[in-house]
Amino acid sequence: MRLKSGLLRGEVCDMKELELGEARDVAATLEAMPIQEVIDQVERTSITKGAVLLRLLSKDRSLLVFDALGPRLQADLIGAFQDAEVLDYFADLDPDDRVSLLDELPASIADELLRSLDPQEKQVTELVLGYAKGSVGRWMSPQVLLLFDDMSVAEVLDFVRNHAAEAETIYALPIVNRARQVMGVVSLRKLFIADPTLKVSEIMVRPVSVLASADIEETARWFLQLDLVAMPVVDESNMLLGVLTFDDAQDIVEQADSEDSARSGGSEPLQQPYLSTPIRKLVKSRIVWLLVLAVSAILTVQVLDIFEATLVEAVVLALFIPLLTGTGGNTGNQAATTVTRALALGDVRKSDVFRVLGREIRVGLMLGALLGAVGFVIASLVYGMPVGTVIGLTLLAVCTMAASVGGVMPIIAKAIGADPAVFSNPFISTFCDATGLIIYFAIAKLVLGI
Amino acid sequence: MRLKSGLLRGEVCDMKELELGEARDVAATLEAMPIQEVIDQVERTSITKGAVLLRLLSKDRSLLVFDALGPRLQADLIGAFQDAEVLDYFADLDPDDRVSLLDELPASIADELLRSLDPQEKQVTELVLGYAKGSVGRWMSPQVLLLFDDMSVAEVLDFVRNHAAEAETIYALPIVNRARQVMGVVSLRKLFIADPTLKVSEIMVRPVSVLASADIEETARWFLQLDLVAMPVVDESNMLLGVLTFDDAQDIVEQADSEDSARSGGSEPLQQPYLSTPIRKLVKSRIVWLLVLAVSAILTVQVLDIFEATLVEAVVLALFIPLLTGTGGNTGNQAATTVTRALALGDVRKSDVFRVLGREIRVGLMLGALLGAVGFVIASLVYGMPVGTVIGLTLLAVCTMAASVGGVMPIIAKAIGADPAVFSNPFISTFCDATGLIIYFAIAKLVLGI
Repeated sequence: MRLKSGLLRGEVCDMKELELGEARDVAATLEAMPIQEVIDQVERTSITKGAVLLRLLSKDRSLLVFDALGPRLQADLIGAFQDAEVLDYFADLDPDDRVSLLDELPASIADELLRSLDPQEKQVTELVLGYAKGSVGRWMSPQVLLLFDDMSVAEVLDFVRNHAAEAETIYALPIVNRARQVMGVVSLRKLFIADPTLKVSEIMVRPVSVLASADIEETARWFLQLDLVAMPVVDESNMLLGVLTFDDAQDIVEQADSEDSARSGGSEPLQQPYLSTPIRKLVKSRIVWLLVLAVSAILTVQVLDIFEATLVEAVVLALFIPLLTGTGGNTGNQAATTVTRALALGDVRKSDVFRVLGREIRVGLMLGALLGAVGFVIASLVYGMPVGTVIGLTLLAVCTMAASVGGVMPIIAKAIGADPAVFSNPFISTFCDATGLIIYFAIAKLVLGI
Repeated sequence: MRLKSGLLRGEVCDMKELELGEARDVAATLEAMPIQEVIDQVERTSITKGAVLLRLLSKDRSLLVFDALGPRLQADLIGAFQDAEVLDYFADLDPDDRVSLLDELPASIADELLRSLDPQEKQVTELVLGYAKGSVGRWMSPQVLLLFDDMSVAEVLDFVRNHAAEAETIYALPIVNRARQVMGVVSLRKLFIADPTLKVSEIMVRPVSVLASADIEETARWFLQLDLVAMPVVDESNMLLGVLTFDDAQDIVEQADSEDSARSGGSEPLQQPYLSTPIRKLVKSRIVWLLVLAVSAILTVQVLDIFEATLVEAVVLALFIPLLTGTGGNTGNQAATTVTRALALGDVRKSDVFRVLGREIRVGLMLGALLGAVGFVIASLVYGMPVGTVIGLTLLAVCTMAASVGGVMPIIAKAIGADPAVFSNPFISTFCDATGLIIYFAIAKLVLGI
């Protein structure tokens, strides 16, 4: 079906241009689309058109789509909505998702929205807002049922049935003692098939729980690895505060991976889908890093300036500059990317710095020996043995240096509280460029005797 | 607690060296550890030591830990186990996880393991094995309950209670008609609080389902965005074949993100935790790309060879080579990383190639204008106006070229069936190096009149 307005094809259109008949056609098309396709459409178009699409959807589907979008895009859409619509979408979100959205909104709008909630919803939202950004508390749902370990299976099932609406999930249920301390966790599945006369304490399992003050990204990663639906969030004295659910953990990990991906490519994360991001935001996300890297690259100009006399003597050396700095950069990036990912997944920790260094020196030496041998043979054949020797030795030294630095830099970045992804890849290249040139000319002067 | 053997500190040890008393100490320490910490320990050590740790755990915890590891690491551990142990771990896995593990094992061992299963488990495992790698079928659980739309809520609940053991999940239940076609989905939560006399068709919702032949990575991404616990997998005639659960979708996305991360850093994915990977595997994962990139970089040597006369005339030009190729590479990588991630998330599709090109040309021009202005001023001050003009103009041209190429390359890669992450970043740098040099010397010859 082809629509004049191009609303579903990413062309220019606005609500006013949309004739009534056509709006009805688009609405019908949207209603027939699988929900994931509708989400994609909203993510692949401008904010104005995204808002129009949401408005044309039926109420429940529109809430579902809005829910699935990231908080940055949600905030932009909120700006394009009318007040009454905003309140609907906002009230429908879970407390933790609501807080993520509030973080993205200007303070005045956030306050107004918070005031619009009914007293109970407002209270739970403010509770979540009370935790530090980046902590588990900020992402938990405080809407949790109090189930005591002296209850029978039948009592628990009854209680859950009558209070299901008050809990974000009823599939994994924390069990507490009378002091509200978490004693175990039981799945609805297990409750459901258990002998109803048993005490719940007899069928519950040892809880996997997390402190509300813990780092959310680290927690989300290991939580997902355990394939759990939800896990209790507790305070220092093991008192139940809320639950963390798998869907929030997923959102966190996806966002963290997108951020790492952007930063390891040398730009700031967009926080929203590419096609819905205005050009000036794209430029803004990239220009700072480009400038910083270009300014650091002035270092390479200075290094070459120092060796200008050597260059004049043997211009042939200039020919290999991009190849050698490129190979150094590539080797460094390989190590940095591998270790950054391993740090994110928790496979490597700060205390492993010397194990990583030892491994990367060995890997770098082996890579350097292989590439150096190839480089020696080829360069010797074309430019003679002395130049070949310089190239071979330089590749050996540069690869070893680059792999070690690339492996260790992300760990140092993490240790000083910086994002390993920022501090590693983009800087590795520049660092390897400058250091590689010094190594290159030092070896050249030695071997060629200039 | 400090253990002589260093089993928990990553030092050398093997089972034979471990004295009985100490084994008991390690076992006690492990039992007291949170499960996620035990998983980390296994992932951060060698295969031999990982197998020892698993053996020292209590049975149920050991199965839980094994379950949480990736299939590559599972396969390596299987090699270090005794036969009887292997069968225990293998039988405990879900059919889809079992198939992922089988894929990593040598054919003879895989066959033997498959034969060891009881007939019913063997049958479901073979069913999953029948689907193509990379398809949804390969990851679904065929263990699904047949619930018909003419059943009442009470009947469904009864059936689920009595057959829970036969289903991977009972939290999201597909409802079929008598021809086994999926008509809707109902959550256990909804069933649980619904009026038991209602027909299940009255409370079920429109199903979000997926074809068994669909691409698993794409499916997993949008499935996770919808925050669902499970979704029905169907054939072309909408017949129920199985369910896809959130934990499998998570594993797939994590693995895909790790692969993208490795490839965009220019190495092959390790498929297992960094510290448990032997050095020679690390070298193997990197050497091929390094060689390919180094050989392509010979292009830059040739380009410079062509312009050697110009270089001899004005050696000052050599000073800026790393800065200019570096900036081109950075700009290209920024665009490539952003678009690769957007492709993975489904925010950009193949058909968007011209929208992306248009956006990146504009972004590249703006970045180039800003950097070019800075470059012109600085280079003019130090090396005079003519050199400044060459640097400024080159930066403008190189940034525009790099951003457009970087934005479009991942889409072209995907269109020809290659991995956007491989084909984009590592190649972008080399391509930008060579093209950037041509642009540089062309502008230099023009402006400086040499």
